Amino acid sequence: MYDIAIVGSGPAGISAAINAKIRGKDIVLFGNNELSHKVEISNEIRNYPGFQLVKGSELNFAFSKHLDELNIEITEERITGIYRMKDKFTLLADKKMFEAKCVILALGAETVKPLENERELLGRGVSYCATCDGLFYKDKTIAVFCDNEGLEEEVEYLSDLAERVYYFPNFNTSLKRENVERPSSKIKKIIGEKRVEAVELKDGSTLEVDGVFFLKQAVSADVLLANLETENGSILTDKNMKTNIDGCFAAGDCTGTPYQIAKAVGEGNIAAHSAFTFLAQGNK
Amino acid sequence: MYDIAIVGSGPAGISAAINAKIRGKDIVLFGNNELSHKVEISNEIRNYPGFQLVKGSELNFAFSKHLDELNIEITEERITGIYRMKDKFTLLADKKMFEAKCVILALGAETVKPLENERELLGRGVSYCATCDGLFYKDKTIAVFCDNEGLEEEVEYLSDLAERVYYFPNFNTSLKRENVERPSSKIKKIIGEKRVEAVELKDGSTLEVDGVFFLKQAVSADVLLANLETENGSILTDKNMKTNIDGCFAAGDCTGTPYQIAKAVGEGNIAAHSAFTFLAQGNK
Repeated sequence: MYDIAIVGSGPAGISAAINAKIRGKDIVLFGNNELSHKVEISNEIRNYPGFQLVKGSELNFAFSKHLDELNIEITEERITGIYRMKDKFTLLADKKMFEAKCVILALGAETVKPLENERELLGRGVSYCATCDGLFYKDKTIAVFCDNEGLEEEVEYLSDLAERVYYFPNFNTSLKRENVERPSSKIKKIIGEKRVEAVELKDGSTLEVDGVFFLKQAVSADVLLANLETENGSILTDKNMKTNIDGCFAAGDCTGTPYQIAKAVGEGNIAAHSAFTFLAQGNK
Repeated sequence: MYDIAIVGSGPAGISAAINAKIRGKDIVLFGNNELSHKVEISNEIRNYPGFQLVKGSELNFAFSKHLDELNIEITEERITGIYRMKDKFTLLADKKMFEAKCVILALGAETVKPLENERELLGRGVSYCATCDGLFYKDKTIAVFCDNEGLEEEVEYLSDLAERVYYFPNFNTSLKRENVERPSSKIKKIIGEKRVEAVELKDGSTLEVDGVFFLKQAVSADVLLANLETENGSILTDKNMKTNIDGCFAAGDCTGTPYQIAKAVGEGNIAAHSAFTFLAQGNK
């Protein structure tokens, strides 16, 4: 059981992790070794105080060194669900489960809006996790959206199970399987009343399916953690970065604009301090 | 008339200034070339992401270079009063006046609580500004508290005017004048109904005075700007760092804990962005 689970390895997650580690907390930091793709590909950053004109990759490198120096490791798992238990949180990754006394969400800004009926049919044919739900679709027909090459092995896993897969990658891929078909159009919306029945494509055609998988690097916050209050896609917090769920804090782009490294770093710091207070109260 | 006046040259003020300058705003940044004394004397800072283990003086140097690179100058004036006009703010320094469309307060944390009656008798014998109010005490008896050697010339100015000065420095000083007396005890409270009548010292003695000057590096926020909402000495803001006064934003330690550089830098960034929004609305 960790003291604090930090979900996201961008500037907000890094800032929270650094503070928590210095304070001697037992932490797990979920993300990937690129830290933040958004920072990595930034051409120039001029408003992170102390760094003058810096490339995103250089700043990421400085962050990375900072983590190394404090022996903070990044756990390269994609968290697909978080569950609030009585006095802890359970975090599900594709193949593992983690437990923590409190959680800091540093998810970044979700740039893709959910499709029509995506939210409504979640758990009733819509899934974000191949490992969790794949077996339900053995010998069935599914649609699979994937936004990240690193997640493509999950597509392969699903195609091992399902009879037929309509595959919608948004990157160039060489994946070829007999039962995998790649429609030329994209998914426009999901059709179904009580359960997923079909997907409608942008070209107007319809494909009957039993389920739809969205394999996305960023799972949106309110899908990740049920009942989390959001507004226009951003997690609602107070000034102490507390969300509406006790023991759950949020920081960085996922709490809203301005989408800035300095803001993310500041909020990560505050979220960590609020987590310390939460942990201290729990230990009374 | 400046677009934005930023009061304070610590991490929050610096962050706000950097963002405002990059956005092409006409700014004035009040502070001193040491930037933040609190940062400067920090032995080691480990939780400002990207800098690993760094001395405060080194981080200040990096901030300073960042300001230089963007041609941001620090105006070394101590702001002693801010007045909200119809569509602008007027800022009074000891000997100058400045005007700005909006204001970002980055004052730092005031560590000294006001004395009994200090607030109540402000403007009725209590003053924070020698230049502004000195002449009222020509040939009178005054008490002068001073927390900063750099402000001692104001004590000299006051002693040129007043007949008698009880001087209470909280640093070692060699200042000697015939009409300046240095009591061995400190001021405990101010006595007076409608106006200042005397100061009571910690040793129980009382000195009759016509006025009391508090010459402090940091003027507390609600004294600086009338009707500014504070709570336990911190400026109240919303998540966008807006105060209760339209066009006035706040960032950094002056908005409350955690007193952290990352938090200050983040809030300075947010405050600047809120100021941009405010300016854009005003120009409609």
